[in-house]
Amino acid sequence: MHILVLNSDKTKIIDKLADINEKSDIKISILGKEEYRPLYDSSYCSFYGISSYFDIKTLKQKFLQIEQEQKIDEIIATTEKSLFAAGFLRSYFGIVGSSITIGLATSNKLTMKNLLKQHIKIGEFFSIANVEELTYLVETSDYPIVVKPAVGSGTKKTIKLENSFDPESPDIEEIFSNQEPVIAEEFIKIQNEYHCDAVISNGKIVFQSISRYFSPLLGHLGGLNGSVILTSENKEVKEILKILKEIIKQLHMENEVIHLETYTDQMGKMYFGEITTRIGGAGIQETIYQKYGVSLSSCIFGDLETIKNKQEVSGFFAWVGLPGENGTIQKLKIPTKNENNSIVKVENFYNVGDKMEGERSSIFFSAIVYLQCKTLRELQKTLEYIQNYYEIEAV
Amino acid sequence: MHILVLNSDKTKIIDKLADINEKSDIKISILGKEEYRPLYDSSYCSFYGISSYFDIKTLKQKFLQIEQEQKIDEIIATTEKSLFAAGFLRSYFGIVGSSITIGLATSNKLTMKNLLKQHIKIGEFFSIANVEELTYLVETSDYPIVVKPAVGSGTKKTIKLENSFDPESPDIEEIFSNQEPVIAEEFIKIQNEYHCDAVISNGKIVFQSISRYFSPLLGHLGGLNGSVILTSENKEVKEILKILKEIIKQLHMENEVIHLETYTDQMGKMYFGEITTRIGGAGIQETIYQKYGVSLSSCIFGDLETIKNKQEVSGFFAWVGLPGENGTIQKLKIPTKNENNSIVKVENFYNVGDKMEGERSSIFFSAIVYLQCKTLRELQKTLEYIQNYYEIEAV
Repeated sequence: MHILVLNSDKTKIIDKLADINEKSDIKISILGKEEYRPLYDSSYCSFYGISSYFDIKTLKQKFLQIEQEQKIDEIIATTEKSLFAAGFLRSYFGIVGSSITIGLATSNKLTMKNLLKQHIKIGEFFSIANVEELTYLVETSDYPIVVKPAVGSGTKKTIKLENSFDPESPDIEEIFSNQEPVIAEEFIKIQNEYHCDAVISNGKIVFQSISRYFSPLLGHLGGLNGSVILTSENKEVKEILKILKEIIKQLHMENEVIHLETYTDQMGKMYFGEITTRIGGAGIQETIYQKYGVSLSSCIFGDLETIKNKQEVSGFFAWVGLPGENGTIQKLKIPTKNENNSIVKVENFYNVGDKMEGERSSIFFSAIVYLQCKTLRELQKTLEYIQNYYEIEAV
Repeated sequence: MHILVLNSDKTKIIDKLADINEKSDIKISILGKEEYRPLYDSSYCSFYGISSYFDIKTLKQKFLQIEQEQKIDEIIATTEKSLFAAGFLRSYFGIVGSSITIGLATSNKLTMKNLLKQHIKIGEFFSIANVEELTYLVETSDYPIVVKPAVGSGTKKTIKLENSFDPESPDIEEIFSNQEPVIAEEFIKIQNEYHCDAVISNGKIVFQSISRYFSPLLGHLGGLNGSVILTSENKEVKEILKILKEIIKQLHMENEVIHLETYTDQMGKMYFGEITTRIGGAGIQETIYQKYGVSLSSCIFGDLETIKNKQEVSGFFAWVGLPGENGTIQKLKIPTKNENNSIVKVENFYNVGDKMEGERSSIFFSAIVYLQCKTLRELQKTLEYIQNYYEIEAV
């Protein structure tokens, strides 16, 4: 067995690879950006460096070079940027798994929505060629327009436009100089946002965890962000699973770990947001592990043992990201425990004196705090406690 | 209306573009290899040069640059090499038409056969990683193996292997150093070979022409190659259309001009060979025009007028390619007319003194001769006449 892994610097995956190597005789090859070579220990894998996941010629060359060693049985992409390359290589070289269509659709909102629009509820959307077209759309629409690049994760570079706007504003110019397709969407006032993290095996859902984001439900909590896993009694759970089943059917998904985002409008109607074939970011993976004992990093390598042995712990499991601050950190006060012990774990990414650099987005955190609460009321109280306690100052 | 055409040096397409420009206000942009720039007159189209159809980053850049001028409504690929790029751009930027799956499948035999194997009759095939795997396959198979690159047109670089072979032979080494996936197929002794050229509009077949290749039916005729259009009474016509319908369904084809190849084994069982979404090469297009008055080059631009006005001329229409000879041509004797006037047109590519350079393959011709015969017997006689008459000498 020979697995080709397209990974960046995701350390959980790297640890998992070392683990797999120890327990089995699976040969592991890594195709990654040259700069990440030092992260990989040559005792358990062979690293092949590339400069881009979008140079077809080099991808083919590297693949054939790796296959000279041993036939590749499986390709695993662990990052959004490598989904297309993985799909391409599978389809091109006849490797079982997500096709190039899935690879492209899950990394490009325009491709995805075009494939699904006839089958599930999606807000109106448009492919925008240039500023003139955007101007026309904004001026003739009955609703505000949200415009953003169709490729790339996180919520950065999203602009809301109403009636008229300055076509020469730097934000607009940045979107059109981004070298990616631009998508404009009907602005829908959101009631709740959800994410569904699931494991698909032979075309069937064998594990799912459905969560609700705190925002906008709980207000912005001073920049706190995170989500709580819902219990299966929630009526939204059924609606979201219906959407997922339709996507599996339309995209011919066979074996995947997916992260799906949906939302409801003010009337409570459920809409498809986006889906990707990788593990959800931030604290999602760890929260699922705490609630169910399921390891999604094992699942992406086809090891479904933790699903078979799944044990659901009662209570509300949640993660909270503490918003970062660019600069050198002068003060950092992170809550690590509280009265009722609902804080169960803290992942600390920075200390005083460290330099934080990043774009303000939904995933720019100084730390992630994990919670286990008996009730939603207790969760709300804990979030308020964290909000009051947390302090960060950087210059 | 703005059409982006991915074309090389195909002159019929270039003429068609000039024609379209004259008759309409359709804006035409060309994305092609920089070396072909001089072929395009800037009075009727804008030419954008690239160095490769497989550099995703450049493809995206050029597309966005062209869209700054005017939104692109349609993308047309006219060559096998550009099918993938066209499919990618359509799927990536949300342009109606053949998806990236069709683009990849129609240019890669491995991808195609993997997508279709559960739905239509295909000979056994295998993806081959390296020489060791090929050796194992050849040694353990009950039948001879045909091995070739999965990408590229024509029948060059195809090797038949039985029982054992020299893994270090130059032919084998060339196949594995070709930077393309290698496909090994069960060798099936062929009775007849067919091609089907069809136009698909909104998922339905609106025109089809089904032909039988001369070889192997008529023996090799001293290297003569070509095909004759079959009448609809032929039972093979129905079988081939059934295969085509299944492909349209499986690949979600909407609007295409396709060229499908099939064959029968010694028992007369019909097998899928390959399919591509472009006009068939050599004399196929012209023969169809003579028989039906249908212009496939118009059809690829969505103009189906000649199909609506189709008029089938009775008789057997065929084309014959006269095999080339590498070197400077010393003698060239090409038949231009015959007693019973069954030779109706000759396309002469070379004259004495010209230098012919090319790889010996199924499409290396000095000229193409077009025939109209009353009976298949007359066709056979004419082919024998051409075979006896044709002479080429080169040094």
